[in-house]
Amino acid sequence: MSERIRRFLEQQRPPTPCLVVDLEIIRQNYCNLREHLPLAQVFYAVKANPAADVVRMLASEGSSFDTASLPEIDLCLANGASAENISFGNTIKKERDIADAFGRGVRLFAIDSQEELHKIQRAAPGSRVYCRILVENTGAQWPLSRKFGCAVDMAADLLCEAQTLGLDPYGVSFHVGSQQTDLDQWDVALAKVAMLFSDLQDRGIELKAVNLGGGFPAHYQEDVEALPSYANAVMHAVTKHFGNRIPALMIEPGRSLVGDSGILQSEVVLVSRKAYDDERRWVFLDVGRFNGLAETMDEAIRYRLTTSRDGEETAPVILAGPTCDSVDILYDQANYCLPVTLQAGDKVEIHSTGAYTASYASINFNGFEPLKQYCI
Amino acid sequence: MSERIRRFLEQQRPPTPCLVVDLEIIRQNYCNLREHLPLAQVFYAVKANPAADVVRMLASEGSSFDTASLPEIDLCLANGASAENISFGNTIKKERDIADAFGRGVRLFAIDSQEELHKIQRAAPGSRVYCRILVENTGAQWPLSRKFGCAVDMAADLLCEAQTLGLDPYGVSFHVGSQQTDLDQWDVALAKVAMLFSDLQDRGIELKAVNLGGGFPAHYQEDVEALPSYANAVMHAVTKHFGNRIPALMIEPGRSLVGDSGILQSEVVLVSRKAYDDERRWVFLDVGRFNGLAETMDEAIRYRLTTSRDGEETAPVILAGPTCDSVDILYDQANYCLPVTLQAGDKVEIHSTGAYTASYASINFNGFEPLKQYCI
Repeated sequence: MSERIRRFLEQQRPPTPCLVVDLEIIRQNYCNLREHLPLAQVFYAVKANPAADVVRMLASEGSSFDTASLPEIDLCLANGASAENISFGNTIKKERDIADAFGRGVRLFAIDSQEELHKIQRAAPGSRVYCRILVENTGAQWPLSRKFGCAVDMAADLLCEAQTLGLDPYGVSFHVGSQQTDLDQWDVALAKVAMLFSDLQDRGIELKAVNLGGGFPAHYQEDVEALPSYANAVMHAVTKHFGNRIPALMIEPGRSLVGDSGILQSEVVLVSRKAYDDERRWVFLDVGRFNGLAETMDEAIRYRLTTSRDGEETAPVILAGPTCDSVDILYDQANYCLPVTLQAGDKVEIHSTGAYTASYASINFNGFEPLKQYCI
Repeated sequence: MSERIRRFLEQQRPPTPCLVVDLEIIRQNYCNLREHLPLAQVFYAVKANPAADVVRMLASEGSSFDTASLPEIDLCLANGASAENISFGNTIKKERDIADAFGRGVRLFAIDSQEELHKIQRAAPGSRVYCRILVENTGAQWPLSRKFGCAVDMAADLLCEAQTLGLDPYGVSFHVGSQQTDLDQWDVALAKVAMLFSDLQDRGIELKAVNLGGGFPAHYQEDVEALPSYANAVMHAVTKHFGNRIPALMIEPGRSLVGDSGILQSEVVLVSRKAYDDERRWVFLDVGRFNGLAETMDEAIRYRLTTSRDGEETAPVILAGPTCDSVDILYDQANYCLPVTLQAGDKVEIHSTGAYTASYASINFNGFEPLKQYCI
């Protein structure tokens, strides 16, 4: 926990559950990324943490923004971003939202289908488009499905058609999966991208950019490689496949920029057993899957925990949230251990919760308020 | 779709996605339940749909309320319920919330552990407590986990201790699982409950009530038995196990009261294929798992769909939501078929969405607004 967050929690004693985000950590992460990947234009994936304070700070540092919806575009514009630094990165957009984004000056749009291409031709004539291709997500802790991206041969045709339609066939994007732990995945994906570039060159089209997507990790239960290893792997793959004709590079970090900046402080509501011979205790927190910890679904993201009783003897627990929904269980299979003396009222801190937490929270499930977030 | 909802959608043309709830259907469902289970006091499970209009109408009909949190208690009190008709049914409660509920006049609390019992002794002295026991959930489409309830022998001890602590050991509750399709499950559970009653009688304690929980279904893709079948099964089991000494009966309907009252209208955002040889189309709606359809998780709840092109030839689809999150897929394995002519801008209605939809919606995920609800 950063000294700034520790001081905030001690001095302010906000009601739990609450998320405290240290903006200085995000700033530092952004600067590190710029330093280690100087060729890449950083498009912060706003969906990871859409707090106005986060967007404003990153805009002041010169970041660009990857947005998923018109409200995210307006959020960025209201907090210091200029339209030319905004990418409308969702491949699924209503045509009127495309028109409204175009009206606000946005000129960069993601596609992965012909219908979407035609919408952009009609609603955002002359804009840059990049086509997302499907790649493997082996090694990702939060793997993506086939929902986004299309086959490479379809992508080639779409980019050709973009040119015919008076759009600018700007480039190609891919996403190796969120919290990707296998550094070779960028090499595999970039091999596909480079072939697509040369295929299109044969068809008379010079693509200009590669959007490397996201995938860099935050620090959850398992140790992860540090940023320089990721940056080296990416640049090695870029150089291997593009030689000295390196295209414009875009990168869309979300989790890796903001994940480690946040501490979620919660309180133990109950410690109990279901039967006299139960080997494990149930520990119920005042935060669960519906008010902030959605990514514990299927126990995919395993956060680091600390408690006010650390150092004492520990034993295995099942961790669950406070709602009456029985799927509101955080960790059952993941073998978490917590101090045997833990009891109702004790504080538990959940680390690296700066990404994909507060914005995911249910508006009103079981009457529990959405997770409150403080940016300091 | 009810005539009232059809007229509302045609005349008001609200922006999609939106949920329209017909209060008259809920009123009718409530009256049916009272008619077929006249011995049971109905505690509406507020979490199913916490709209103020729903609570107000049910309060005016004389319903009692099962609540999961202090905000839900306040919602009920603000909309016509009196404190003596409110049960604080969550077995996981902060002690200060128990105290606040007690301060507002609530005198009926659920427990399933000794720690919770002691909290109630301290914060709500003299109150009625009922103990939730673990039962099988075989046959439930939304089965509950072991999160709530305790073993029967532990329940007996807790209810004895309640008496010692000056509390009123009021009764026993169980829950056979949500959207339960096996009518025998109430018989299995009530056999356990009756044994607990007689065990406690031997120990000098006369329990007064059985809380039958929820479990009655809404009408999703599969046909379900009508209410009279459920009511008969329950009363048959009660009579079988309690003879002519029938305890006070509580029932906590949520889904079965409000589920069928709602129509969620959405719009097709995109229809596409990922590759030229894809056999199935992807149909992306403007509503998904994060703005209303959380119960499509693992494709558990399979809603009925209608479209503006029904009657035309259909073909299989994968149905997905509008966010950039790749888990935002509604149905992949469930083999939904939709008209081959379906295209962006077309309306799709999702039926029986009155329960566990709007309140589950994320506050701000990907910038998408929570689902808007109209009660008519």
